[in-house]
Amino acid sequence: MRIALDAMGGDFGPPNLVAGAVMALRDYTRIKKLFLVGDTPRIEAELKTHGCNDRRVEIVHSTQVVEMTDGAVDSVRRKKDSSVSRAIDLVKKGNAEAIVSAGHTGAAVAATTIKLRTLPGIDRPGIAAIIPSETNIFVLIDAGANSDPRPEHLVQYAIMGSVYSRHVMGYGDPAIGLMSIGGEDLKGSDLTKEVFKLLKQSALNFRGNIEGHDLFEDPVEVVVCDGFVGNVILKTCESVGDAIFKWLKHELTKNKLRMAGAYLAQSAFRAIKKKVNYEEYGGSPLLGVNGICIIAHGASTPLAIKNALRVAAESIESEVNPHIIEEVRRYNETTASLEPALR
Amino acid sequence: MRIALDAMGGDFGPPNLVAGAVMALRDYTRIKKLFLVGDTPRIEAELKTHGCNDRRVEIVHSTQVVEMTDGAVDSVRRKKDSSVSRAIDLVKKGNAEAIVSAGHTGAAVAATTIKLRTLPGIDRPGIAAIIPSETNIFVLIDAGANSDPRPEHLVQYAIMGSVYSRHVMGYGDPAIGLMSIGGEDLKGSDLTKEVFKLLKQSALNFRGNIEGHDLFEDPVEVVVCDGFVGNVILKTCESVGDAIFKWLKHELTKNKLRMAGAYLAQSAFRAIKKKVNYEEYGGSPLLGVNGICIIAHGASTPLAIKNALRVAAESIESEVNPHIIEEVRRYNETTASLEPALR
Repeated sequence: MRIALDAMGGDFGPPNLVAGAVMALRDYTRIKKLFLVGDTPRIEAELKTHGCNDRRVEIVHSTQVVEMTDGAVDSVRRKKDSSVSRAIDLVKKGNAEAIVSAGHTGAAVAATTIKLRTLPGIDRPGIAAIIPSETNIFVLIDAGANSDPRPEHLVQYAIMGSVYSRHVMGYGDPAIGLMSIGGEDLKGSDLTKEVFKLLKQSALNFRGNIEGHDLFEDPVEVVVCDGFVGNVILKTCESVGDAIFKWLKHELTKNKLRMAGAYLAQSAFRAIKKKVNYEEYGGSPLLGVNGICIIAHGASTPLAIKNALRVAAESIESEVNPHIIEEVRRYNETTASLEPALR
Repeated sequence: MRIALDAMGGDFGPPNLVAGAVMALRDYTRIKKLFLVGDTPRIEAELKTHGCNDRRVEIVHSTQVVEMTDGAVDSVRRKKDSSVSRAIDLVKKGNAEAIVSAGHTGAAVAATTIKLRTLPGIDRPGIAAIIPSETNIFVLIDAGANSDPRPEHLVQYAIMGSVYSRHVMGYGDPAIGLMSIGGEDLKGSDLTKEVFKLLKQSALNFRGNIEGHDLFEDPVEVVVCDGFVGNVILKTCESVGDAIFKWLKHELTKNKLRMAGAYLAQSAFRAIKKKVNYEEYGGSPLLGVNGICIIAHGASTPLAIKNALRVAAESIESEVNPHIIEEVRRYNETTASLEPALR
């Protein structure tokens, strides 16, 4: 398989991105070609640092980088030679099957949607964030691609999340929960009430409304929400986790007795840290575009980039997109055959 | 001061509610009258359990309870003799200054809004949740009263949150953050982009957009968001916190070495648990109604109810409502005097 990495985007630029690429090349022999897109001299310098002269690497030069202050759609029009746009072009031309970017999320979403288009039956792509609970790993979709979706977009997210959970993560019959405020059928916003009706009458494994406190206490495999809410959930989870570990560290180093206790129990802290560490999950697939696009965290470490490349490889291998097309087609057929009164 | 407690609402009903009332009566001499509204025999039985014959208690009998499956507005019309409606009637008639309820949040919001009306200049009330970070305590408004607000509602929430932070929590010049997805001015949903413009041109201490990860890393004193997003944030924070402590407990009891470590460091865990314990914060004021209404957690313990009664007392004492009326009037005057081009 052939993957294109936007080697410029993200908070730390080429050093972390190229280091992650080198790790991935070492561990994943199934990657037959890895395009590193960006400023050639900087990428070459980083490759040299790691003593990497892997023949699967091909540098594709680009002169521009999308900045965080750039507008999403604007960046596609104005920065035609940006690393993310050039990386997507490789997928468009059929030179690569997937792109990974840790840069401006909105720009990656806009460029992918404009250049690759959406899959048949899909109106808008959605970001599927992969989140660990103690007992499972769930998909939260949309985590930020679409802030003002229509009800049918959320139904498409439910279908795509379910396909991803089944075909990439291996859950047999993933349960879908609709993020709302109140478990009862009639509670929620105007948007979620409408989505509830659509999901209820579908053949999907729809568990009903779920609330924030169900996320980790009674987790489903797929959490459906609009991109604004999903993005807030994702960042809030990270924030609360980080804050608790920081307080804990602060409290545990307040006196020698506590420090001794923390020393003895350190393996417990490490076990949890590993479980909640986003680096292990790598990147979030942007589902619904005609190609594979993995959105990595802006602050990605080399390990996170390596894992984002692994996620890209898994998405290619498990043929997510053909499965999405098939499931959406089936949903639309079933819906079309419903009595008008039920629709 | 005189407070009315809905003695039936909440997951555990009269036992926790009356126990909390008894604790509050013991600790807060400033409470001159406490109405316990609900089923008289059950309330009397609970008071007897605690050996309480405080003369400040007055039981007000009601025959109905709003159930979680009842519709919010519907419950006001159909269950005229519910404990929450009767408790609000006491405020309406001037027998009490505040009501506390741990029951159906939507019903409490609807009944309060219908019976007491909103304050002059306020279109819709908002729930102000009180959330601790390591360095401060912030107000998140709206935490669930209004799922589909208009932009001007969020501006009113910013004003009310700021008044509460200043006059009840004692912050000098509380900074206001608008919950969004991306720190840059132009990012967010259609709603938040419009609210951003309105807050930017106001005289409020507006910090700009904040994101989920700023909540605890770089906290403001007032977080403004729609009720759907706020409710999700609140419940997600609780969920992540609970999940981490549960995993921690699980990991720390896996072997004897870790258990010994946890034993030595136990005071550190207790310090954090106390800080993140919602029971210490008691209840969330519903701001914007013509009266004081405190929404307590459905699963409130007696300690949480006691603290909700304390929050009610503080809101009465600090004259939150006259301050809100004044601040909204000032905002409206300033906005009206702006050049039309700026509005």
